[in-house]
Amino acid sequence: MRVGVVGASGYTGGELLRILAQHPEVEVVAATSREYAGRPIHHVHFNLRGHYRGLRFEKLDVSRLSEKVDAAFLALPHGVSLHLVPQLLEVGVLVVDLSADYRLKNPESYSKWYGYEHPYPDLLEKSVYGLPELHREELRGARLIAVPGCNATAAIFASAPLAASGLLAEPRILVDVKAGSSEHGSKPARGSHHPEREGAIRPYSPGGHRHQAEVEQELSRLVGREFRVSLVPHAVSSVRGVLASAHAWIDGEASFAEVWRSFVSLYRGERFVRLIHSTTPPGIPDPKYVAGSNYVDVGLAVDQALGRATGFAAIDNLVRGAAGQAVQAFNIAAGFPEDTGLGIPPLHPV
Amino acid sequence: MRVGVVGASGYTGGELLRILAQHPEVEVVAATSREYAGRPIHHVHFNLRGHYRGLRFEKLDVSRLSEKVDAAFLALPHGVSLHLVPQLLEVGVLVVDLSADYRLKNPESYSKWYGYEHPYPDLLEKSVYGLPELHREELRGARLIAVPGCNATAAIFASAPLAASGLLAEPRILVDVKAGSSEHGSKPARGSHHPEREGAIRPYSPGGHRHQAEVEQELSRLVGREFRVSLVPHAVSSVRGVLASAHAWIDGEASFAEVWRSFVSLYRGERFVRLIHSTTPPGIPDPKYVAGSNYVDVGLAVDQALGRATGFAAIDNLVRGAAGQAVQAFNIAAGFPEDTGLGIPPLHPV
Amino acid sequence: MRVGVVGASGYTGGELLRILAQHPEVEVVAATSREYAGRPIHHVHFNLRGHYRGLRFEKLDVSRLSEKVDAAFLALPHGVSLHLVPQLLEVGVLVVDLSADYRLKNPESYSKWYGYEHPYPDLLEKSVYGLPELHREELRGARLIAVPGCNATAAIFASAPLAASGLLAEPRILVDVKAGSSEHGSKPARGSHHPEREGAIRPYSPGGHRHQAEVEQELSRLVGREFRVSLVPHAVSSVRGVLASAHAWIDGEASFAEVWRSFVSLYRGERFVRLIHSTTPPGIPDPKYVAGSNYVDVGLAVDQALGRATGFAAIDNLVRGAAGQAVQAFNIAAGFPEDTGLGIPPLHPV
Amino acid sequence: MRVGVVGASGYTGGELLRILAQHPEVEVVAATSREYAGRPIHHVHFNLRGHYRGLRFEKLDVSRLSEKVDAAFLALPHGVSLHLVPQLLEVGVLVVDLSADYRLKNPESYSKWYGYEHPYPDLLEKSVYGLPELHREELRGARLIAVPGCNATAAIFASAPLAASGLLAEPRILVDVKAGSSEHGSKPARGSHHPEREGAIRPYSPGGHRHQAEVEQELSRLVGREFRVSLVPHAVSSVRGVLASAHAWIDGEASFAEVWRSFVSLYRGERFVRLIHSTTPPGIPDPKYVAGSNYVDVGLAVDQALGRATGFAAIDNLVRGAAGQAVQAFNIAAGFPEDTGLGIPPLHPV
Repeated sequence: MRVGVVGASGYTGGELLRILAQHPEVEVVAATSREYAGRPIHHVHFNLRGHYRGLRFEKLDVSRLSEKVDAAFLALPHGVSLHLVPQLLEVGVLVVDLSADYRLKNPESYSKWYGYEHPYPDLLEKSVYGLPELHREELRGARLIAVPGCNATAAIFASAPLAASGLLAEPRILVDVKAGSSEHGSKPARGSHHPEREGAIRPYSPGGHRHQAEVEQELSRLVGREFRVSLVPHAVSSVRGVLASAHAWIDGEASFAEVWRSFVSLYRGERFVRLIHSTTPPGIPDPKYVAGSNYVDVGLAVDQALGRATGFAAIDNLVRGAAGQAVQAFNIAAGFPEDTGLGIPPLHPV
Repeated sequence: MRVGVVGASGYTGGELLRILAQHPEVEVVAATSREYAGRPIHHVHFNLRGHYRGLRFEKLDVSRLSEKVDAAFLALPHGVSLHLVPQLLEVGVLVVDLSADYRLKNPESYSKWYGYEHPYPDLLEKSVYGLPELHREELRGARLIAVPGCNATAAIFASAPLAASGLLAEPRILVDVKAGSSEHGSKPARGSHHPEREGAIRPYSPGGHRHQAEVEQELSRLVGREFRVSLVPHAVSSVRGVLASAHAWIDGEASFAEVWRSFVSLYRGERFVRLIHSTTPPGIPDPKYVAGSNYVDVGLAVDQALGRATGFAAIDNLVRGAAGQAVQAFNIAAGFPEDTGLGIPPLHPV
Repeated sequence: MRVGVVGASGYTGGELLRILAQHPEVEVVAATSREYAGRPIHHVHFNLRGHYRGLRFEKLDVSRLSEKVDAAFLALPHGVSLHLVPQLLEVGVLVVDLSADYRLKNPESYSKWYGYEHPYPDLLEKSVYGLPELHREELRGARLIAVPGCNATAAIFASAPLAASGLLAEPRILVDVKAGSSEHGSKPARGSHHPEREGAIRPYSPGGHRHQAEVEQELSRLVGREFRVSLVPHAVSSVRGVLASAHAWIDGEASFAEVWRSFVSLYRGERFVRLIHSTTPPGIPDPKYVAGSNYVDVGLAVDQALGRATGFAAIDNLVRGAAGQAVQAFNIAAGFPEDTGLGIPPLHPV
Repeated sequence: MRVGVVGASGYTGGELLRILAQHPEVEVVAATSREYAGRPIHHVHFNLRGHYRGLRFEKLDVSRLSEKVDAAFLALPHGVSLHLVPQLLEVGVLVVDLSADYRLKNPESYSKWYGYEHPYPDLLEKSVYGLPELHREELRGARLIAVPGCNATAAIFASAPLAASGLLAEPRILVDVKAGSSEHGSKPARGSHHPEREGAIRPYSPGGHRHQAEVEQELSRLVGREFRVSLVPHAVSSVRGVLASAHAWIDGEASFAEVWRSFVSLYRGERFVRLIHSTTPPGIPDPKYVAGSNYVDVGLAVDQALGRATGFAAIDNLVRGAAGQAVQAFNIAAGFPEDTGLGIPPLHPV
């Protein structure tokens, strides 16, 4: 299967190229970049030197692209995919969009969180939220996949079993997210300048993060009623990795075992979800142990005396939070085994 | 004034020595360490080479110590100060204890959280919780100061104005703490082995952390009724620094300005508290900007649509979370200006 | 082919398991560890949870092991492989030893650098130094492979083309090595305690490092006369990665192009050596770009006015500096394509 | 004494402000910044919030400045001080220039290394190289001080005793420098983008670094004949800190003790130089132990069998490599005790 990566010069683009280089069922035949058109791939992605020898970045040209590829991964800034998606769909290209442009089902959410009226509400209906563990059936044969954001992915995995447990005191969860610096992309900025970022512990968008719309959408859908989610991300000095800590007040009497049952029930048998029981080393998820892989490590802690439960989910933000999850969802849509190209164990220590 | 540092070979001990070296009103005449007795100070604290030339570690001998010093800072593991404190008090030494042994007013809390019955409940009554902004008057002339823990200090500063605001939906707060590796002390262990810790984002004691007892005690006292606090600390890969994010559900209509009023009211005029308003750079506290100093940077975010408020407090865990706060409280007790020896601005970037 | 990993609980052991999990021609049927016998693999290597489900650590029992395996990778401390190697060879097991015990050809070097008389000088003759680019032919069919150390590997790659160029002012090179913390193994120690190691730039063994014996051996062999090498390693605060900077005084007139010719001549066509010309981004090797891979990135700088040349080599110390190079050499010995199981591109950023 | 900081918004400017805030003999009455004119100091230097309450950045206006200040510290990019210096000198301002514009005595060196003909060769004669340990007498009463660069400072301290020892095989030294990210300033760039810099070990200017001109100048002057220095800096992932490793081939028979004598002879009694003998912990300099201070930690290793000596010098690049050394030199010029404002012990761990 011939695929293209659109917006291939950033971190997500580079990670897609790294993963697809090992995917036995696809060939990357196009990688677009406005800035680096004409340059070989390793001119930007130094790590990929020796791979993609024949390939060079090219400017995006929809008609040329659609002739060359069967599927396209869009690693573009939010808002840039918006009009490109319908064009690609029209000429029969399977679209895997890593932006937020087609994630929300309710068009009004775009007005509220992104500040524009969504021009293709019909496509919002057709797009499938590319979180395989929650949307596997819809993904089969899908033509438009909207891959979740990294903070949202971690937040959903950590909070979904709590929400679904029926043991919460109220239908709302406080998700405190900690994220590495690669989450902010490859473009230099003061906040990610090494002397400023190394050692930092810095909240961002603390007054309300856009991704909480996705998380609320998914949790509400899962539990069948409105569910409120607060998402407060914090920049820490890791490079890769996101940990979501989903805190909720529970009914006083619920024990660890009772809450845990909901985690097992939701994730048992999932190829890429590793359940970390509190009594087995390391006892708790840590993104250190999923680096470079598509795994989600999920755990739980309960303070029964206080009546508080916290679900934890650790991911590699560039793999499970972006490129890996995109490939996993794509595999399902295209009919390949779900883990094709994604079998590599995490790298540790790193 | 002649002072001694008991348990001077760890990070807190070293930080006390660093700060006291610049304190014009005291002379450090004793530094104890079982392991390094006989060695010069810089044998352990390489940074202090050139300072304390005449001083060597000595074994702790209470009677010798009490002859030499007017005041003693105890930087000992929890449980070790327990019986030492009354001995020192009896011979008239002013005691500044950095352990948890005399922090809790309710003796039963020791049975619950520390697993022993406290042998000196009368001293618990006399000891003053060494957080100057909340206990300044009691500290004047105090003879036994119980310096708060670093996570507790950050948690209290972040959550007290929320608790006191009268705007919370319920009397409980979820404090999510992120802490650097120096918090765990100078003794090597697997969890703080560099390859394991660097890049980690790892919850610890997530089922209920001992320090929540202190925080509950202080918040309940402040608001005049029982207040519940959940404290979930996370190890991140900073070396110094703690950020507490205190999340609470608020009454739907409360705005940032209304909640902020409580922060201003509680901390205005405090020498060591810097209020970071959300509209002024950097907008939010980050321990990066307090490194090496006794400052607490405090901030707030409100998601009014969702009904959630988060108080933030950033400290240097070894200064404001231990040695610096100890010296600040000691200054008050001893009648020195509160900031004596503590005036150095933070180091940045570091 | 059935293989065993002896000493499988450390970082090198874990990395062997990670790489061999993806090797299509081998099955790992044994992993030994004294400390963790009976535990599943992921009890120690949290990253490998979900892999090696049926396998548990076992105590080393040579006769049992030799029945189970065709080849053994020994990831043991120096000195521990010494007597194990002949036992395994005797029962026909192909031995890939990652310690220093069989690297030096001259038995006297063991007395000098390691403080013992080598008991099997005949085996020193038979063992092949497992650096494929310099010993490929000898490796074919080899039964005992002595895999180079990580600092030595980087040092040899950086300095060999200089030594072989015929352009040096004298037959000696100063190799300044910078290495990440994983090089020192998984056992906690003060020097690798996170608060002490993060941000450190610390020379170690600066008065003469054991690995310079290997480097001198290989360079002398390559140029056909005695060659002296100074090796001064420095601990820096990376986790993975080694950079060797091999400095030499050159004959005044030699240009970059002339010296570079020797690099091209030595490494051209090598699957795992990437030549980084100074005029192409990034211009210079950096271990950041080889993380998790078996690549060696090699570069050169010449200060013609001054008469100085520096060869650079960047590797991942756990892959090309240990487990990856072991598998590469093993592949040659066992008759597999040299890159079997080693094709994964580097992970970036990480 | 009234002083101004010109170019006060970068890291060096911020560090000058931090140090001068504690200097009892000076008052900072002006801080210039084109970009931030009108803003309070803490708008840029978040760490300094609470200090310099009355001060705001202003645009540089030479005549206004010269009325306000007795001395000016210039923390400007190279080339920008060039014409400013004579203007300030003319109106009687004591100038402490932290750029390279007045460091080299030989005007031709500017053509060679900086690409311009120096317009004020007479001022080059009058300027004093602001390294107090080598130029203390000239500094007394000096009106123009050219403060050394950070790499040069470390390189000179590490290599001067070797050069002066009379024990080298030849008059040249290979200095391999490792430096933290703050050395490259506060302006974001790809190479110092956190995901790219964290974990990096990356040579820069490896074909000849400008600072070697200063080092050669100082060493040649010290030993009384031409001395050649190769300087190869490497970016590592510390934030603060520089270590210079000065490698030289020595006459075969020289022992550690013989070479060490030269170190003691050169630095004995120096307030800010700490000699780290190889047999006393930590045995070797590491910038970890000088963070935030003006110390230079100096050490030595000798491989007698090989005939190689390495001098080591560790500094904080922003203090001893810039602002601290500037203040030390200024103190001498202005007649204050040399360590005024510089007495704070290093911060550790950090």
